[in-house]
Amino acid sequence: MDLDITADLCADLDLVFSALPHKASAEACIPLLEQGVKVVDISADFRLKQADVYREWYGVDHPDPTYLEEAVYGLTELNRDAVADARLVANPGCYPSSAILALAPAIQNGLIGSDIIVDSKSGVSGAGRTLSMTTHFSEVNENVMAYSVNGHRHLPEISQELDSIAGDPVNLTFLTHLIPMTRGILSSCYAPLRSDERVRRVYQEFYADDAFVRVTDAPPQTKQTLGNNYCLVHPVVDSRTNRLIVISCLDNLVKGAAGQAVQNMNLMCGFPEEMSLEALAVYP
Amino acid sequence: MDLDITADLCADLDLVFSALPHKASAEACIPLLEQGVKVVDISADFRLKQADVYREWYGVDHPDPTYLEEAVYGLTELNRDAVADARLVANPGCYPSSAILALAPAIQNGLIGSDIIVDSKSGVSGAGRTLSMTTHFSEVNENVMAYSVNGHRHLPEISQELDSIAGDPVNLTFLTHLIPMTRGILSSCYAPLRSDERVRRVYQEFYADDAFVRVTDAPPQTKQTLGNNYCLVHPVVDSRTNRLIVISCLDNLVKGAAGQAVQNMNLMCGFPEEMSLEALAVYP
Amino acid sequence: MDLDITADLCADLDLVFSALPHKASAEACIPLLEQGVKVVDISADFRLKQADVYREWYGVDHPDPTYLEEAVYGLTELNRDAVADARLVANPGCYPSSAILALAPAIQNGLIGSDIIVDSKSGVSGAGRTLSMTTHFSEVNENVMAYSVNGHRHLPEISQELDSIAGDPVNLTFLTHLIPMTRGILSSCYAPLRSDERVRRVYQEFYADDAFVRVTDAPPQTKQTLGNNYCLVHPVVDSRTNRLIVISCLDNLVKGAAGQAVQNMNLMCGFPEEMSLEALAVYP
Amino acid sequence: MDLDITADLCADLDLVFSALPHKASAEACIPLLEQGVKVVDISADFRLKQADVYREWYGVDHPDPTYLEEAVYGLTELNRDAVADARLVANPGCYPSSAILALAPAIQNGLIGSDIIVDSKSGVSGAGRTLSMTTHFSEVNENVMAYSVNGHRHLPEISQELDSIAGDPVNLTFLTHLIPMTRGILSSCYAPLRSDERVRRVYQEFYADDAFVRVTDAPPQTKQTLGNNYCLVHPVVDSRTNRLIVISCLDNLVKGAAGQAVQNMNLMCGFPEEMSLEALAVYP
Repeated sequence: MDLDITADLCADLDLVFSALPHKASAEACIPLLEQGVKVVDISADFRLKQADVYREWYGVDHPDPTYLEEAVYGLTELNRDAVADARLVANPGCYPSSAILALAPAIQNGLIGSDIIVDSKSGVSGAGRTLSMTTHFSEVNENVMAYSVNGHRHLPEISQELDSIAGDPVNLTFLTHLIPMTRGILSSCYAPLRSDERVRRVYQEFYADDAFVRVTDAPPQTKQTLGNNYCLVHPVVDSRTNRLIVISCLDNLVKGAAGQAVQNMNLMCGFPEEMSLEALAVYP
Repeated sequence: MDLDITADLCADLDLVFSALPHKASAEACIPLLEQGVKVVDISADFRLKQADVYREWYGVDHPDPTYLEEAVYGLTELNRDAVADARLVANPGCYPSSAILALAPAIQNGLIGSDIIVDSKSGVSGAGRTLSMTTHFSEVNENVMAYSVNGHRHLPEISQELDSIAGDPVNLTFLTHLIPMTRGILSSCYAPLRSDERVRRVYQEFYADDAFVRVTDAPPQTKQTLGNNYCLVHPVVDSRTNRLIVISCLDNLVKGAAGQAVQNMNLMCGFPEEMSLEALAVYP
Repeated sequence: MDLDITADLCADLDLVFSALPHKASAEACIPLLEQGVKVVDISADFRLKQADVYREWYGVDHPDPTYLEEAVYGLTELNRDAVADARLVANPGCYPSSAILALAPAIQNGLIGSDIIVDSKSGVSGAGRTLSMTTHFSEVNENVMAYSVNGHRHLPEISQELDSIAGDPVNLTFLTHLIPMTRGILSSCYAPLRSDERVRRVYQEFYADDAFVRVTDAPPQTKQTLGNNYCLVHPVVDSRTNRLIVISCLDNLVKGAAGQAVQNMNLMCGFPEEMSLEALAVYP
Repeated sequence: MDLDITADLCADLDLVFSALPHKASAEACIPLLEQGVKVVDISADFRLKQADVYREWYGVDHPDPTYLEEAVYGLTELNRDAVADARLVANPGCYPSSAILALAPAIQNGLIGSDIIVDSKSGVSGAGRTLSMTTHFSEVNENVMAYSVNGHRHLPEISQELDSIAGDPVNLTFLTHLIPMTRGILSSCYAPLRSDERVRRVYQEFYADDAFVRVTDAPPQTKQTLGNNYCLVHPVVDSRTNRLIVISCLDNLVKGAAGQAVQNMNLMCGFPEEMSLEALAVYP
């Protein structure tokens, strides 16, 4: 990686998307920021607020922790105003978007306790284009497996954001599964219910002004989000056990990454939030 | 359905497998039993011990509840001796086999508390050959969804068997998902950990004498069971949250149904338990 | 079907797409035409020029053969001017679009003889939403089969159009295969080569002014057309055997049906041909 | 590769299967042969009779062409007696087995002319376990493509064997396609028909004594051969064009490789030909 980020280059830029690997991304973005260019970073480099947590999960020292405080966690629905004012947005990981959007309304409204389990199922594109036996067609096809059972790298950012909403630490288990499909993440979230009054209404009101989150009447399917920027959320009260189940899904390559990044850019640049993101799902 | 089950017919039979729909199966099996024929029933008709629970979940009155007490729940690993002596074995549902085999060692050894969540992922063959939009290729392919979110019919038999092992009611949430593959079930089970000592050894000892349950070193994959009679079980301690995660998988058409039935028949007829069930997985 | 097609209704309509079943479609479209409404018919009712061929392949008498002569076969690239002037366009079947676009440049330029074989592979959405064992996920997944081996209904329209281009009858074998994917058709076409000079240039020139047909440098893949209106065409000279192989692919639900229909509508209404059809493929 | 093939090692061996890469396989097998060990070679090293053809297609000089004449092409159904007497059997490639078994009855009985097209569709396991973008799940899933359009390495062995049956050179085009499934090959073969009398009976008589080739009444499906050693063959007369279409399928990892090798071993060792190969298909 040998990016020559000069003042001349930056003079022509309003905003940059970085999709570099972690560490390399921070190293490329910081000179841009210092030249006054806005940045939406799709890597993990600015998502975590604490440099020691970053080191623990990514195995390297953060290139410059001074930016961690400033960076806005770019889940637009939760941080719309801050995103609009930001010069540095940390675009969320694909799993965290589905988990946090599923749980935020219940946590913020005190509907659930802190014992939370998120069981996520992802298509293979979430693993990127790198070649490995895990993404070989003959291994993935007609197969389901859990992976990263000792802790997926997206766990700390989910915890951080849920803790922040709750105002207290949540006790989060997060388990990821690889599914024989290309695109899509579906997360099934479980938590003890403190109050089952108006669960559905709480969710509808929470997302009443959000174009890209829909509280659905029926359990959502990843296919309903294939190629579009929606996150579908479906809360269900399990009255037998007094638990809340929330099922959410999205396209990991759109609302889970590139579409989310464009949504953030729209706000940062003063464009309409939905601009260029109106595509319907490709169905079937 | 007009089965003419005469004494003449039964004179030639030692044992019958019934794979009829519920209610029809009991109606066909009871005359056989009364003629001295042993029965392995693959329907749900003799799995639940209580007639009112049967009525609640299957929507019909049980044809003859007097057999419910006698019937042995045919998860061989847990009820081997009773199966060997039984004349009526209720073969478990495909989901319960994976869930109960995953949790039985922990419950019986007091490793976990009663707040249990089972998140299961199933291939499409679990839904049978009936035609519906839910099994249309164009709907299932490149898609994941939760279904029966208000309670899957296999929930009561999982609860019944876990309660029985625990000696107390467990508080079970069970959620099922449809995955774009033909065969296989993978269940991810979550419970609060009371003691993390020797979790792995407890599991290994519990299944030490069982040919068809393997406690694996790595997270298991449904592909490893495609076409064979194994259930793979993998316990993981989530030390961040003090929870036990157990991942299990099997082929819903073998250990989850027909293979399990043959395993039971072998015991009921005095054959070696593994007879005709030694096939390896078809890989890849 | 009880369509009440009144003059009042028609007064508000410029153009109608009909996606009704054959025969029903003609019965609905003819009153519209008589009221001055333009029609793009996606059924097979106006594709064949001869009423007896229609009867042979569709098993019913044509509702009104007088329209067969007038109807324009709506493969825009071959009939652009006629489509623009038409009031009735017969939108092609999904297979014929791929086969005819693959072969037209070679036939029209005399590069190949008349012994033509088209071997087509289609995703399952080509079979529609009707429930049948043939579209059940468990039957289609991990499976490939030929079907309609005694003659697929799209054969006569391919023959008709190739005959018309050649000015003489071609001797066409057309075999269809069902592939475990949702969208896409790939056709491999074989014919004896009369002249291998400039094959690639002939193709490039033939489609030089067509926005939606691309002559590719490498063998095309259906995934490259998923969700877009392109047909990709790749001619290869098999110099060992002196044959021309042409591989073509498209999305059967876009260029093979609805996208093609919109492309025709654009011309019929005087809109830019590419309007609303600029979407890229959804990749991966 | 550093195989130390000593006389001591060989003293304990009756027969060796070699599944090494080409060239390496010949280098390992020849010392074994010289020590009196029988060999079934699954590589391409002894399939082609002419060293220059080998060099043309595999890009290396053959390690020892003196064995090419002796090696028996191990398509058991065509060379049963020679296989039984052989010390060196060249196990066929997966594509050639399906193509040659489809065409041999028609060629040997003079039913077809020499202009032959074989259009084959293969699952991904045919490409082996090597990692490449071509076998990445996200690339293969929901996709079909032709590959090796300028000549697949299996072409010369198909030609060689068909020429040998015909007694004259055939004019063969062979095109391969990658299908989004793991196992299975389906070949659709086309040739001009000289005589349509008794086509079906010719096929049935040709394979009357073969346990592993079945002439089917309906178009065969690869799923019917998943995990078993059968090749299914289905001839169809296309009376419109006076062509013969033959559709064949098999599991590329069984009848297309390992199962075929065991079948050859059985004969070479004097075992029953079907020994250990009686498995049914895994269905669905």
